Amino acid sequence: MEAFIEKAKTLIEALPYIQRFAGKIVVIKYGGSAMIDEDLKLSVIKDIVLMKLVGLKPIIVHGGGKEISYWMDRVNLQTQFIEGLRVTDAETMEIAEMILSGKVNKSLVQLMFQQGMKAVGISGKDGAMINVEKKLVNGKDIGFVGNIKHVNTEVLEVLLNSDFIPIIAPIGLDEKGQSYNVNADDAAGAIASAMKAEKLVFLTDVEGVLLDPYDQRTLITEINVSKAEELIQDGIIAGGMIPKIKCCIDAVNNNVGQVHILDGRVDHSLLLEVFTNSGIGTMMVK
Amino acid sequence: MEAFIEKAKTLIEALPYIQRFAGKIVVIKYGGSAMIDEDLKLSVIKDIVLMKLVGLKPIIVHGGGKEISYWMDRVNLQTQFIEGLRVTDAETMEIAEMILSGKVNKSLVQLMFQQGMKAVGISGKDGAMINVEKKLVNGKDIGFVGNIKHVNTEVLEVLLNSDFIPIIAPIGLDEKGQSYNVNADDAAGAIASAMKAEKLVFLTDVEGVLLDPYDQRTLITEINVSKAEELIQDGIIAGGMIPKIKCCIDAVNNNVGQVHILDGRVDHSLLLEVFTNSGIGTMMVK
Amino acid sequence: MEAFIEKAKTLIEALPYIQRFAGKIVVIKYGGSAMIDEDLKLSVIKDIVLMKLVGLKPIIVHGGGKEISYWMDRVNLQTQFIEGLRVTDAETMEIAEMILSGKVNKSLVQLMFQQGMKAVGISGKDGAMINVEKKLVNGKDIGFVGNIKHVNTEVLEVLLNSDFIPIIAPIGLDEKGQSYNVNADDAAGAIASAMKAEKLVFLTDVEGVLLDPYDQRTLITEINVSKAEELIQDGIIAGGMIPKIKCCIDAVNNNVGQVHILDGRVDHSLLLEVFTNSGIGTMMVK
Amino acid sequence: MEAFIEKAKTLIEALPYIQRFAGKIVVIKYGGSAMIDEDLKLSVIKDIVLMKLVGLKPIIVHGGGKEISYWMDRVNLQTQFIEGLRVTDAETMEIAEMILSGKVNKSLVQLMFQQGMKAVGISGKDGAMINVEKKLVNGKDIGFVGNIKHVNTEVLEVLLNSDFIPIIAPIGLDEKGQSYNVNADDAAGAIASAMKAEKLVFLTDVEGVLLDPYDQRTLITEINVSKAEELIQDGIIAGGMIPKIKCCIDAVNNNVGQVHILDGRVDHSLLLEVFTNSGIGTMMVK
Amino acid sequence: MEAFIEKAKTLIEALPYIQRFAGKIVVIKYGGSAMIDEDLKLSVIKDIVLMKLVGLKPIIVHGGGKEISYWMDRVNLQTQFIEGLRVTDAETMEIAEMILSGKVNKSLVQLMFQQGMKAVGISGKDGAMINVEKKLVNGKDIGFVGNIKHVNTEVLEVLLNSDFIPIIAPIGLDEKGQSYNVNADDAAGAIASAMKAEKLVFLTDVEGVLLDPYDQRTLITEINVSKAEELIQDGIIAGGMIPKIKCCIDAVNNNVGQVHILDGRVDHSLLLEVFTNSGIGTMMVK
Amino acid sequence: MEAFIEKAKTLIEALPYIQRFAGKIVVIKYGGSAMIDEDLKLSVIKDIVLMKLVGLKPIIVHGGGKEISYWMDRVNLQTQFIEGLRVTDAETMEIAEMILSGKVNKSLVQLMFQQGMKAVGISGKDGAMINVEKKLVNGKDIGFVGNIKHVNTEVLEVLLNSDFIPIIAPIGLDEKGQSYNVNADDAAGAIASAMKAEKLVFLTDVEGVLLDPYDQRTLITEINVSKAEELIQDGIIAGGMIPKIKCCIDAVNNNVGQVHILDGRVDHSLLLEVFTNSGIGTMMVK
Repeated sequence: MEAFIEKAKTLIEALPYIQRFAGKIVVIKYGGSAMIDEDLKLSVIKDIVLMKLVGLKPIIVHGGGKEISYWMDRVNLQTQFIEGLRVTDAETMEIAEMILSGKVNKSLVQLMFQQGMKAVGISGKDGAMINVEKKLVNGKDIGFVGNIKHVNTEVLEVLLNSDFIPIIAPIGLDEKGQSYNVNADDAAGAIASAMKAEKLVFLTDVEGVLLDPYDQRTLITEINVSKAEELIQDGIIAGGMIPKIKCCIDAVNNNVGQVHILDGRVDHSLLLEVFTNSGIGTMMVK
Repeated sequence: MEAFIEKAKTLIEALPYIQRFAGKIVVIKYGGSAMIDEDLKLSVIKDIVLMKLVGLKPIIVHGGGKEISYWMDRVNLQTQFIEGLRVTDAETMEIAEMILSGKVNKSLVQLMFQQGMKAVGISGKDGAMINVEKKLVNGKDIGFVGNIKHVNTEVLEVLLNSDFIPIIAPIGLDEKGQSYNVNADDAAGAIASAMKAEKLVFLTDVEGVLLDPYDQRTLITEINVSKAEELIQDGIIAGGMIPKIKCCIDAVNNNVGQVHILDGRVDHSLLLEVFTNSGIGTMMVK
Repeated sequence: MEAFIEKAKTLIEALPYIQRFAGKIVVIKYGGSAMIDEDLKLSVIKDIVLMKLVGLKPIIVHGGGKEISYWMDRVNLQTQFIEGLRVTDAETMEIAEMILSGKVNKSLVQLMFQQGMKAVGISGKDGAMINVEKKLVNGKDIGFVGNIKHVNTEVLEVLLNSDFIPIIAPIGLDEKGQSYNVNADDAAGAIASAMKAEKLVFLTDVEGVLLDPYDQRTLITEINVSKAEELIQDGIIAGGMIPKIKCCIDAVNNNVGQVHILDGRVDHSLLLEVFTNSGIGTMMVK
Repeated sequence: MEAFIEKAKTLIEALPYIQRFAGKIVVIKYGGSAMIDEDLKLSVIKDIVLMKLVGLKPIIVHGGGKEISYWMDRVNLQTQFIEGLRVTDAETMEIAEMILSGKVNKSLVQLMFQQGMKAVGISGKDGAMINVEKKLVNGKDIGFVGNIKHVNTEVLEVLLNSDFIPIIAPIGLDEKGQSYNVNADDAAGAIASAMKAEKLVFLTDVEGVLLDPYDQRTLITEINVSKAEELIQDGIIAGGMIPKIKCCIDAVNNNVGQVHILDGRVDHSLLLEVFTNSGIGTMMVK
Repeated sequence: MEAFIEKAKTLIEALPYIQRFAGKIVVIKYGGSAMIDEDLKLSVIKDIVLMKLVGLKPIIVHGGGKEISYWMDRVNLQTQFIEGLRVTDAETMEIAEMILSGKVNKSLVQLMFQQGMKAVGISGKDGAMINVEKKLVNGKDIGFVGNIKHVNTEVLEVLLNSDFIPIIAPIGLDEKGQSYNVNADDAAGAIASAMKAEKLVFLTDVEGVLLDPYDQRTLITEINVSKAEELIQDGIIAGGMIPKIKCCIDAVNNNVGQVHILDGRVDHSLLLEVFTNSGIGTMMVK
Repeated sequence: MEAFIEKAKTLIEALPYIQRFAGKIVVIKYGGSAMIDEDLKLSVIKDIVLMKLVGLKPIIVHGGGKEISYWMDRVNLQTQFIEGLRVTDAETMEIAEMILSGKVNKSLVQLMFQQGMKAVGISGKDGAMINVEKKLVNGKDIGFVGNIKHVNTEVLEVLLNSDFIPIIAPIGLDEKGQSYNVNADDAAGAIASAMKAEKLVFLTDVEGVLLDPYDQRTLITEINVSKAEELIQDGIIAGGMIPKIKCCIDAVNNNVGQVHILDGRVDHSLLLEVFTNSGIGTMMVK
């Protein structure tokens, strides 16, 4: 009985957080280890289910780079990356869409179903949601890699209003109806802005932003836009973290309340961030 | 961090219960020690706030017998009880209403406010909710003590639809508009039936139904209507427990899913019942 | 038959007034003799019922000073007034709330019920309607006497939309959830402003504003804000009438169409004001 | 002042009637002297405006026989009647529709406008409201005189829901889209049944049903269906009154609460019937 | 089969036009030969039915000058025109209204019915739609000829929302409730502006605007406001075309997307204009 | 101009069909040549766009067997069929889902986008739409091939109500959340029944049901259930046509108005069937 009462108290501790976020939209960029390790996967899904049940409105945007590379290999196609972006010719685009929309996306819908939740898996092509134009890298054409121009939120609003959890594969269409691969971080950021999300959460494979990447104790728990820009300037934020941070900056500058970079390798990191004051990962505010 | 993850797991354990009761109405008869002890009071209020936030629709019906007796004394009026019911002349009725509607009821609204919740405190007179006729005890008139004839749910539905927590003082009107005192257990039962509540919970000062009142180990955790009637017949359920059990039987026979007799002296007993499988108190089903 | 036709003509005469006020909110500050004399009481209630039936939306705010004093006496507590305001310690607050919310308020709900109307009696605590801060009188703390900071109209809108007549006891909460006594005139004025009422009517025990308080023939039938301020300046409006007139000025300066000071001792004074061109009492406009 | 209070009391006397009929549909067959005498006309219009304002939903069905005859004459066409029904060839139908839909109907809309009410004048052709078949009189074809087969209420519901007063000219269409003249009493009866009206009122040029047509003191104030059928059988109800009474019987047998035959020559007879207990005219109930 | 496939291709060709105008309001001024010749009449009605079925919202405003003149004659009244406007004394007004509201209007409702459509025929008096003041011609009073001051769109919106086709006779009321004749072109223009119509179409008896009235090859297919004003200035647009062009200019200057002057003598000219790129008649844009 | 008028007449000829099917649901099983040949594909898409624009509510269920076989080959997996059903082990299921949900489905969404329509591509997993159990073929387990137990229409209703065109890949989940391949004909039939579709159309590579498969002139244009069962009994309907015909019988026996087997190789066959009286293919009715 004592143990049960202790548990009840834990539920009660979450009260102020539940009150604060009731009815708010949270966009979750889901990727990395948390999408590969079976236990972590279940932990993430359950966290999202709880968020939904206590009144938040989660929207999931997923990546799937490793799966795409695995299948490229299986059909004997070469993968080339330029500045971290996959060069995407017509055949690569075909494989990428099959994996993202036909495999990763639907497997998340399935996991939600197994937890008793009704999810609907779509890509940015559905409902003409994500409109893109070709992205040039240093002026160079790297194929069907898209820059998001506009997010048409209608299909998302319809699904949220009917209590479905939207799960989104990062693929868009240009004005002629050509398919493009879109960076999942960018898609999550643009969707969070368009939906005026309260929170945008990136589940990553790092602890957050570290002043010294080799020392976890240098984790920055909270940062604002100008400080972040300064750290990029000074070369402290560098490499692959730069585009993610730029994505965070864009989001807080465009209607998103808070952006979080969380360590998806920690069990229930989503819940810890949203429902406790444990302060994990890095939070960016305006 | 370990501790935090443990807490997150506790939240996750509540998932199946939250899913099961989402959107359901729970009527709580609030009385006894849980309404007097300041710590227990806060524990009950927080439990109800959590229920509300995770999607249940709580309705509170309170008593207030001790407070009435205290004020009767203070203005030098005598209190007489017949078969556990307060003999209620015009002056007693006046005091009872002042205490129930003007003191106990509003103090609960206030506690809810302090926890960030919008409650609305009304009595069975408001919106013509509780219609009564005079109750005779063994054919004897004991004053303005009412038998509930009908519950008009309109005002409750309006408040629930606008996300308020209704808090109800057990007072009704007869067809001529005369005020009557109503037993709070009866009021809770009739309201639960009229609202087709999923659960009706009595917060009491006993562990539940005991086969041997002096031995807690004889607690009956689940009982159905016919078994309950048998135990009354056999004299095992006796005294003040009889009307409460009859009230439970009426409720499960009239649209209420489950009825619970809980020990309000246990911290967070409401949460334990609804969100864990700890199985406290006695549950009656059809 | 002739007599009947005469009556029909009287109904027809009310037509332009009914057309003009259809769907409009009228806040009635109910107090004084009209709340004590049984015949006047019934006359007021019937007037309000008619207003409601012909399409107006009445909201009633009541006082209850005399009843509070009577019960203070009965439990041997002293009442002290400073500048017309009751010094309100914790015990006084307890009694005041019991009387206002538990007795006066519910007796009005009951009278409405007897006239076939569904009223809902609440106080400013319900739905967190009236938010206050402590009022200081010449810098002096006189206890739990509140200054209204904000009126949260949600619960009123919900009740009006569902065709209930709201009846309000003038009690509020500060941000910590402490109860405060609020002057009923102030409460009526603040509610009328927040609800953008067409009319705010004070039922009083005077004929209206008199230039010479001893000569009814000096009644001012219509006055605007600047003229009223001038009369206060010149000492012609004096004593207890000053705060009431200030309350009127505040209301017409904040969204209320017209404010009326009526003589509640006259039978059907409310109807006379609203549905005839008899011009009773004093009307203030911007 | 005394006089004003007397008037207020008259308003109050109407309370129970207003309460009883609030939200109910009343179909008024408007014809006879009340449609010709200018004073009576204004009295009827004002009565209907009051009904509307206090919450009833009036629908007006008008005739116009005298006007049609006048214009037939003016364009040198002969009028022939068989069993009280106008023989209606194509030219007669053309004139009848012009007068009913283009003159009488619109002049009533205009009178309503002058009293501040928004009315919409339509005929049974609009919204395909009145579907008819050819009526044979003793097996004889008398032209475009229609028997009502079905009333399609959609356009009426749309207008009532938007707070317009519908004014209806008694013309219908058969399934091929041919126009037919319809008896206005029949149209009023069929519409009242289809709309499940609370009341159907015939404004006529008689006092009501008289046992002895030459003695007003023999007025029947209330009658039921079987008694009415008996009086027809016995020849006491005779001549032109027979079809009207049959129309009443049909209505009370088909969803209409009460049917009234009123003397339209009496000022405000509609109000007298609805809002007083003066008991004018004859009421038929089931 | 080949022929059928050809037909299907024609349907497909209309696709882009249907998509472009879906949900848009089109006001059609219906008059001239297209309202007299039986075949043309049916062709116009069918065009409007198709427009309605593929998602446009047509509103019809009709004239009826020839019919009025015919009936004026028939009852031996003289017709006088000043500057193309009928001098309208009380008797003329009476005839005009009977013909417009009682004959022309209802015959269009009837034609729609025969094509399976539910239309509702009203005039500008219904729902107080068209408010006018007296129009003076060069300072001269020519009787009840109205200038439109305001269009109250409520009744039109109610009918469109319930999927009825509104058919409107050009008659209005001044503020005292006097009836006035209104020029049908003016009525169509004012209604199109008030309803923010996508298109306003005049069905006329000319090919459109011709630079040389005797040479069809000089048809102007598209013109803007400033060019139109220039052509009036230069005397190229002259005579009866001037008021129509002014009406077009007013419309495009007040919320209407495009205004068309079509030749109503051409079969299906409405469909040709809306659903093909055949470019018939003259289109005016801003 | 003549040619244009001819076209307008063709549009007008479609009127009665458009009127008849306005607002009705049409489920289209899309497969065969019509999904491979680029011209036919565009013709089908345009037909569906027109249906949508003129007020029908199309739902598309597609197959994709050839594409699946092509990719099975490409990744060196063997395909085995038993009684026309693909034996589906875990790897086959994975490929099938990638192709159906990730390739075929999204390419149809894309084609709709290019025609200006908003489609949403989902599979039977989304919104828990298609619930299945394992299908045994003559008692033999052939892997993840599902039998449809229930169609949960919620997500379809939500999309239709928001004016999206739903495009569905035939994949379902069993109660444990395992994915299953579902025959596309079965899926279309079950969805049409659950949605109470007016029409279910199979686009096939045959002319319809032929009495003699080698003689097109023996096409059956209309057939009812008992006749169809008789033809199966007699061996005239045989081979691969049997399951399709059984699917038709199930549909007309379960809420579907009409079922059509059309020749998808004919240009605009969908339009021909719905909007002309050309009578192509075979129609089954109850």
